[in-house]
Amino acid sequence: MKLYKTYEDLPKIKLPKGQEVSISDSTLRDGAQMPGIVLKVDHKVKIYEYLHNIGIEKLETFVYNDRDRNAISMMLDRGYEFPEVTGWARAATSDIDLVLDIGAIEETGILMSVSDVHIFDKMGLPSREAAEEKYLDALQYAVDHGLRTRAHIEDMTRADNTNFVYPMIKKILEIDPKCTIRLCDTIGFGIPFVDVEEPFGIPEMVRHVKEELKAVNIETHCHDDFGLAVANSIAGYWHGANWSNVTFLGIGERAGNAELEKLLLFLERRIEGFDKYDLKSLFEFAKFMEREIGIRIPRNKSIVGNNVFAHESGIHTAGVIKNPFTYEPYPPEVVGGKRAFLIGDSSGIEVLRFKVEDTLHDLLDVKISVEKNDPRLRAIQADIQNLYNNEKRVSCISDEEIQAYVEKYFLFEPIVEKSMGRKTL
Amino acid sequence: MKLYKTYEDLPKIKLPKGQEVSISDSTLRDGAQMPGIVLKVDHKVKIYEYLHNIGIEKLETFVYNDRDRNAISMMLDRGYEFPEVTGWARAATSDIDLVLDIGAIEETGILMSVSDVHIFDKMGLPSREAAEEKYLDALQYAVDHGLRTRAHIEDMTRADNTNFVYPMIKKILEIDPKCTIRLCDTIGFGIPFVDVEEPFGIPEMVRHVKEELKAVNIETHCHDDFGLAVANSIAGYWHGANWSNVTFLGIGERAGNAELEKLLLFLERRIEGFDKYDLKSLFEFAKFMEREIGIRIPRNKSIVGNNVFAHESGIHTAGVIKNPFTYEPYPPEVVGGKRAFLIGDSSGIEVLRFKVEDTLHDLLDVKISVEKNDPRLRAIQADIQNLYNNEKRVSCISDEEIQAYVEKYFLFEPIVEKSMGRKTL
Repeated sequence: MKLYKTYEDLPKIKLPKGQEVSISDSTLRDGAQMPGIVLKVDHKVKIYEYLHNIGIEKLETFVYNDRDRNAISMMLDRGYEFPEVTGWARAATSDIDLVLDIGAIEETGILMSVSDVHIFDKMGLPSREAAEEKYLDALQYAVDHGLRTRAHIEDMTRADNTNFVYPMIKKILEIDPKCTIRLCDTIGFGIPFVDVEEPFGIPEMVRHVKEELKAVNIETHCHDDFGLAVANSIAGYWHGANWSNVTFLGIGERAGNAELEKLLLFLERRIEGFDKYDLKSLFEFAKFMEREIGIRIPRNKSIVGNNVFAHESGIHTAGVIKNPFTYEPYPPEVVGGKRAFLIGDSSGIEVLRFKVEDTLHDLLDVKISVEKNDPRLRAIQADIQNLYNNEKRVSCISDEEIQAYVEKYFLFEPIVEKSMGRKTL
Repeated sequence: MKLYKTYEDLPKIKLPKGQEVSISDSTLRDGAQMPGIVLKVDHKVKIYEYLHNIGIEKLETFVYNDRDRNAISMMLDRGYEFPEVTGWARAATSDIDLVLDIGAIEETGILMSVSDVHIFDKMGLPSREAAEEKYLDALQYAVDHGLRTRAHIEDMTRADNTNFVYPMIKKILEIDPKCTIRLCDTIGFGIPFVDVEEPFGIPEMVRHVKEELKAVNIETHCHDDFGLAVANSIAGYWHGANWSNVTFLGIGERAGNAELEKLLLFLERRIEGFDKYDLKSLFEFAKFMEREIGIRIPRNKSIVGNNVFAHESGIHTAGVIKNPFTYEPYPPEVVGGKRAFLIGDSSGIEVLRFKVEDTLHDLLDVKISVEKNDPRLRAIQADIQNLYNNEKRVSCISDEEIQAYVEKYFLFEPIVEKSMGRKTL
């Protein structure tokens, strides 16, 4: 018999391959490309600070214009050991020279688009061979100039992997055996399950690159067009990738990327022995992005939404009041969140009693316990239900309104009764 | 050699078990429980209309108060064959009586909480046996009164499945062999991968209930606390479940549920031979939820966010202008969306040229082609880059602003030059 009555009782999971895994951030690159947002230099540096506080190992950034370069120099001036600032380049020596110009950058990504529509239609190249030559030349140039490299295998989930991509990766690893092979699920077509046929299956892709091609550094970069970015990133770790490239809140092109915060939570809370990241600033980090960058965060966004520790419905609030483990995935303080009880149209008597007791405690500074069938409590409940039944009301009842009800039914009415009583004496 | 240059070229996937799969909606139940929102009767009926237009087979709703019952009667008055309106009850005859009071409802869900913290702490029951007795009694009562049943096995991903839950499901199926067994990943602890140990692995859970216990109707209900709700729902289908219970936009308790729209897109666009749902109203449906219910939709929300077909960065816009397949997951019209090109700080010359040509076409009503190195085009680009470099600007350049630039550099300046020229004659 197994009893799970606290978070500690729940078993932790082992990553099947047992490898060490890390996170690289692309909030300042793919995130900054998100249509409709613009990151100022100060924003970038502040995001860098948050990533440092969490313990993220690596980030990537553009190096194209003065704002890019100012941000890099301000980040490097902080003198932090991590996140390591790495570059991003198209497969052209001129782009790699821009990375090299920033003396302190030691690693760069190089864009290598491998789907035929990218090779022929986007880039206008005459053949796969021409694309491969261009990519390998750029890689060789980066290696020759002392850079560590990442090959960004763009749109790999819509490419001819067996006949073109895998043989090319083999050549990449001949040039730089330590090159990080980034499997880019650029349009989100990846599937996180085993036994999915090429080019969609992330597990098979990771397995092939690791076991057949012997890559030692494998990274996923997954987009969320089909809602599977996080599962695909975790599937990468599951089958042997040691890196995942993500963005905070999943900002990025179109539907964005896998969310940094979801990977952090999964690793920290679910994986055995894992505790290298500090998640306490996640909620504050999200508020920063909302306030300063204008990212909309729905109430029900995992981990950082306002509702993640908010309870309103009868069954849930009754459970959480008795033991938060009943309906909370982890304690709010893990991510710097706060528990809240809301009174709305789906609330039951338990949460109302809890709120009324709390309000009386605030007003009178004594511990008070109200019976579930106290007529005053039931009167407040009836008043609130009327508001909703008449459809006059579509929002929750605020703490101030609860206080007014409590004053009316618990404090003011008895006083009136009492003074009325006196008059009749 | 495989060539994928159109959506039709990409291979479709087969669900490994080959079963027919359907969707049941909980937007009006779990969705309506979302803290901070209130669905009016009119909202519920409108949501029902959208679900009908999509082709959703089934929905569930509360039957507790007059507003619930009004909404049900208005939905039934529509006379639609689907979605079938089903009930929701706690494991108590009084709750089931409320369902029975609505003569036209033929199926109800019955809440059966199975984790120990729910049995002991939330419900205050003395033992697992007492819980089981309560649940089976309620089920028997529903069956005796002619209802089809669904057993909502609550919090199954934190329960002792081998020793308690599976034996209980066996008894449920003895009472009602056609009972839909809903595997509720109530707190989002489910993992979508095979070979995950109990109680987390959704594939093993579905396999056991289907193959060992011989359930014929299996449904998942997955919450998104760890960001895996969609992957877990699809994992359910993948391993043999025939239903998935979801909400539109994933609204619901805490981080909410798996998103209806993501399942729809996955089934319609990725699964071989699947075309029973109509996705064309998804974008409009989302706008309705945003406008009328106040649900915040981030720009990068998959399928329905404003950015899903918006392109701003240099590489992406250049690709999409040449062939939308380069950077779009499916044509916008599939979900009633619209492609947009935005000019922002990550835009390159291609999209600017496209916008300028488009604007000239609008202004002059002739087809015009501008060279990439036209000095007037480069002048507009320089003006825009200056705005961003000075960090005076943090939003995109609107179509009106582009028009003003085009008028300035292409129409007004040549006229000034010409008239100046005349003066010097």
